[in-house]
Amino acid sequence: MQFTAKDIAFMLNGTVEGDPLVEANHLAKIEEGGNGSLSFLANPKYEQYLYTTNASVVIVNNSLQLTSPVKATLIRVENAYSSFTLLLEQYNTIKLNKSGVEEPHFIHKSAKIGATPYIGAFSYIGQDVTMGDNCKIYPGCYIADNVKLGNNVTLFPGVKVYFDCIIGDNVVIHSGAVIGSDGFGFAPNPDGTYTKVAQIGNVVIEDDVEIGANTTIDRATMGSTYVRKGVKIDNLVQIAHNVDIGQNTVIAAQAGIAGSTKLGENVMLGGQVGVVGHITIARGTQVQAQSGVSRKITEEGKRWAGSPAISYTADMRSNVVVSRLPELEKRVNELEKIIKELKDRDVH
Amino acid sequence: MQFTAKDIAFMLNGTVEGDPLVEANHLAKIEEGGNGSLSFLANPKYEQYLYTTNASVVIVNNSLQLTSPVKATLIRVENAYSSFTLLLEQYNTIKLNKSGVEEPHFIHKSAKIGATPYIGAFSYIGQDVTMGDNCKIYPGCYIADNVKLGNNVTLFPGVKVYFDCIIGDNVVIHSGAVIGSDGFGFAPNPDGTYTKVAQIGNVVIEDDVEIGANTTIDRATMGSTYVRKGVKIDNLVQIAHNVDIGQNTVIAAQAGIAGSTKLGENVMLGGQVGVVGHITIARGTQVQAQSGVSRKITEEGKRWAGSPAISYTADMRSNVVVSRLPELEKRVNELEKIIKELKDRDVH
Amino acid sequence: MQFTAKDIAFMLNGTVEGDPLVEANHLAKIEEGGNGSLSFLANPKYEQYLYTTNASVVIVNNSLQLTSPVKATLIRVENAYSSFTLLLEQYNTIKLNKSGVEEPHFIHKSAKIGATPYIGAFSYIGQDVTMGDNCKIYPGCYIADNVKLGNNVTLFPGVKVYFDCIIGDNVVIHSGAVIGSDGFGFAPNPDGTYTKVAQIGNVVIEDDVEIGANTTIDRATMGSTYVRKGVKIDNLVQIAHNVDIGQNTVIAAQAGIAGSTKLGENVMLGGQVGVVGHITIARGTQVQAQSGVSRKITEEGKRWAGSPAISYTADMRSNVVVSRLPELEKRVNELEKIIKELKDRDVH
Repeated sequence: MQFTAKDIAFMLNGTVEGDPLVEANHLAKIEEGGNGSLSFLANPKYEQYLYTTNASVVIVNNSLQLTSPVKATLIRVENAYSSFTLLLEQYNTIKLNKSGVEEPHFIHKSAKIGATPYIGAFSYIGQDVTMGDNCKIYPGCYIADNVKLGNNVTLFPGVKVYFDCIIGDNVVIHSGAVIGSDGFGFAPNPDGTYTKVAQIGNVVIEDDVEIGANTTIDRATMGSTYVRKGVKIDNLVQIAHNVDIGQNTVIAAQAGIAGSTKLGENVMLGGQVGVVGHITIARGTQVQAQSGVSRKITEEGKRWAGSPAISYTADMRSNVVVSRLPELEKRVNELEKIIKELKDRDVH
Repeated sequence: MQFTAKDIAFMLNGTVEGDPLVEANHLAKIEEGGNGSLSFLANPKYEQYLYTTNASVVIVNNSLQLTSPVKATLIRVENAYSSFTLLLEQYNTIKLNKSGVEEPHFIHKSAKIGATPYIGAFSYIGQDVTMGDNCKIYPGCYIADNVKLGNNVTLFPGVKVYFDCIIGDNVVIHSGAVIGSDGFGFAPNPDGTYTKVAQIGNVVIEDDVEIGANTTIDRATMGSTYVRKGVKIDNLVQIAHNVDIGQNTVIAAQAGIAGSTKLGENVMLGGQVGVVGHITIARGTQVQAQSGVSRKITEEGKRWAGSPAISYTADMRSNVVVSRLPELEKRVNELEKIIKELKDRDVH
Repeated sequence: MQFTAKDIAFMLNGTVEGDPLVEANHLAKIEEGGNGSLSFLANPKYEQYLYTTNASVVIVNNSLQLTSPVKATLIRVENAYSSFTLLLEQYNTIKLNKSGVEEPHFIHKSAKIGATPYIGAFSYIGQDVTMGDNCKIYPGCYIADNVKLGNNVTLFPGVKVYFDCIIGDNVVIHSGAVIGSDGFGFAPNPDGTYTKVAQIGNVVIEDDVEIGANTTIDRATMGSTYVRKGVKIDNLVQIAHNVDIGQNTVIAAQAGIAGSTKLGENVMLGGQVGVVGHITIARGTQVQAQSGVSRKITEEGKRWAGSPAISYTADMRSNVVVSRLPELEKRVNELEKIIKELKDRDVH
């Protein structure tokens, strides 16, 4: 990728200030930009870097007034931040614009594959799989029998989807994620051993969901584990069987949700949060990192923290006192001593 | 899969009530059952759904007395729950009944493979591997040199087993799990760098073990990391080098056990539990989710909670007071003020 | 591998005591050593086992004075521990000494591969990849377009490296680890949905780094996520976008570091630790297992514990009082009662 300042200005409908033929071949932050890099300045806080940067081209707001000479070629636009975001997306689209079917692969003859797919080498597509248009299946993915994929689905390398699972449109799943593994269901026997409870449900992932690397989502015992429209899940997250995650909920890395729990819409779970099974969490609930939710949450839009989780403000206040606990105990010791003296004196 | 009510009644030794020719092609919960679904009613609590369900066929107890008309065809059996469980297993057996050897694969000529295997495409079976009968190696698995697998082992897609590891009969390992990766052993040097300690042991997984998706079990530095008979491990669990997990122990998702720790039989660890290294945990110990076990547990069959873990009941009691800590501190402030007044008055 | 006591003594520059022709074919701890095993005795605490072991050959210090007869053949050396360590490494080198290029594989014609590689079956090497000498790419690895690998890099089975990432010399990455997946960046919209922020940076892993199984390291939004020289990372760890991990830092299993946080050199994070985003952690900081670091740490070389983390000693002291909290509350109740009595009496 190599563009002149003039080309970029044309794409962004901007105007060039400086050498229009200078070339940029990668994107960089303004404070890190070197020769050949294209950067932007939106936040006035960073204006100082404009006068020292080694970036070749910098996108700036039309309204910016220079206070010193600038080495880089400037491209002036209405909104430097949104113009740059546009370029970011453009850049990524080019990088991820794989197409074609690589060899070797395993595609069952009964599988139905939509238009313009990318199917990477060593990918496995099982019996009766259906796949919409513009799907990108990176190398080493596994799509089991009877799985359904919508349009514009991207599975990064090594994603595994067990049989019968359903994935909507525009879903992105990162490397190593496992969709549809057995729920953790075992019935105890009198002799201390366990008998497996067959897990015959599936996982349903609705449209516009993104799932992080090495995350695991178990299939339902019966029925479906649901990840609703617009949900965003980070890396190494565990979603147990029969969980139902409401629309536009966001779950940070290493959080875990136990079986049959139902999260409302627009919930936010911080990193390493745990949620017990068989409860419901009201829409808009926010849970701080490392907290443990042990009871249902019925009030919408509140913030929780701690393990077990209590209201965020109560937890903050308690934490402060916890750090002073040894001192508090000493004060109680002292009080008891004084009281004893007072009482003894009283007696005499 | 498509069966008539009559077929199902025959399999379960039950009697048909309603149209014996109605067909079912999938299993569903009674409250979710639609056209073509087969369901069951065991718990009287759910009886209401029997009169409203759209399921085509419902298995019920012989003893059930109807209080309203029912649209579905009923199959009456001695025990509806156990009959349905039987069907679940049957269903799963059919779904998972893969066989044959798919192309391409890599099987070292020295590998010994038992009768009726399934070996999925892109699977790798190394030098001197031995594998019992009826093993199912799903696509993209990696079995390193000198690994031994028993009979009826199932490795779901993308399981990796490092060299020299030993896996018993009837073991099930889910996608992305890693068995036998190097233990985390590094010796510090005076200059702040670390030198790796070679990890030359292996992992031994005994019979009837199930291991969840993306779980990691490290090989021993020397000797073996043991997962004993009947152990059940959930997803994303970390088992460090030289750990020994006792028979029929159950470990929930995202728990972690540090090096050389020995768990007794029938231990239960909740989700996200951490256990420090080099300790022993008595048989029958139960640890609540998110707890951290920092010392050995010698008394059998007790329940623990908190980080660091204390007895479950003590932790419950402490948690209650923690949430009232700011108030407790205020009460101590108040007491000190009163005492000061009393003492001052005393002096005068 | 099969050596006589005489052979081993020759390798270690030691002297044989007993049958020089006895053979050993594997390594074992002295307390577990059986027929054919080679063991060592360095710690006097274990001397008792020397007289009962079934190991065929035992390496001991020159200085050791026997107090009973010994069945095994002894090899006397200056330092039994370091001699044994030498053998461990030798053993591992032989075990891991794979070479050659296995079929089938996918290597883009533009990829540049150094001398004496091992490339396992089902490995994928993308466009413009460059790879140094003596790299070992185990089966089923994925190396995306434009990735650069140094010399002596080992990627165990199923490692995935996304495009543009850079990996230094002598790096070891264990099975299932994902390098360069998208950072978790989504901008909220007024209607509750999220728009993905393109993640166009990369991951840079410097020399002498080891990364555990199923660990995930996200690419930077822009610029790079850095794992500096000599860092050791355990299994199932999450490193978010734009994190920078200082030289020789050690991170135990299941820890997680949120976006843009910068760890100094020689930091140690215990298992399941969480660190919030956008902070710096001073060099030499040590954080206890399961702790949560919620604020920047500026003082070097201190130890922290708890969630939120406070100084280690303060946390230890607080934990003790937490377990006595119900009792403390009772004592305050009692004090209030007495005070009330005293005041009442005072009034009359």
